[in-house]
Amino acid sequence: MEERVEVSILLDLYGELLTDNQKAIMNLYYNEDFSLSEISEINNTSRQAIHDTIKRCYKQLVSYENKLNLLSKSIKLEETKQKLEHEIAKIQDEIRDSSIKDRLEVIKKVLMEEISV
Amino acid sequence: MEERVEVSILLDLYGELLTDNQKAIMNLYYNEDFSLSEISEINNTSRQAIHDTIKRCYKQLVSYENKLNLLSKSIKLEETKQKLEHEIAKIQDEIRDSSIKDRLEVIKKVLMEEISV
Repeated sequence: MEERVEVSILLDLYGELLTDNQKAIMNLYYNEDFSLSEISEINNTSRQAIHDTIKRCYKQLVSYENKLNLLSKSIKLEETKQKLEHEIAKIQDEIRDSSIKDRLEVIKKVLMEEISV
Repeated sequence: MEERVEVSILLDLYGELLTDNQKAIMNLYYNEDFSLSEISEINNTSRQAIHDTIKRCYKQLVSYENKLNLLSKSIKLEETKQKLEHEIAKIQDEIRDSSIKDRLEVIKKVLMEEISV
């Protein structure tokens, strides 16, 4: 996974464990594509201070993932969901009863939309 | 949910974020039912020190849950899984094709066993 994408997902999963200021800086850098200079201006501090904060928060997010594995669990969960969706769709193709087809459609929808890490 | 059960689940979910020593103390108290005196003897410290550690760790676990909501998500996930299991079982009862019945059984098994927070 590309680092920017990975950090962006780690921020979704563990961002609440950072301080509001840390979260805001990480969001500007990884999601909004601001430069270090731009973020340091907004925060009224040095480019180096922002660089250090980003490095420290990045390590912290990786450490949370190493302990709780929410990212790797969510990847595995997505794979399982897609496998089940595919199996249900195959059964829908094979049966004739349209009311059961519809009920399988609802099951597929709940599976894909309501189940996540 | 009874406090002892709730803390035991929070320990499963967030225990890795405590230190090894904190985790061991919380485990003895909440899962193994040791008394404060027994734990303080094992740790060669005072009953008060163990009491403080347990109180601090308990607050920390609750704070993690307030931020990441893994317990409430896992309760919701269990409810959704049971709803889907029930719907699939109803379809199994209504159809005649035994090969599709079997494939629905596999889907149900994967849903119940491989999907968790």
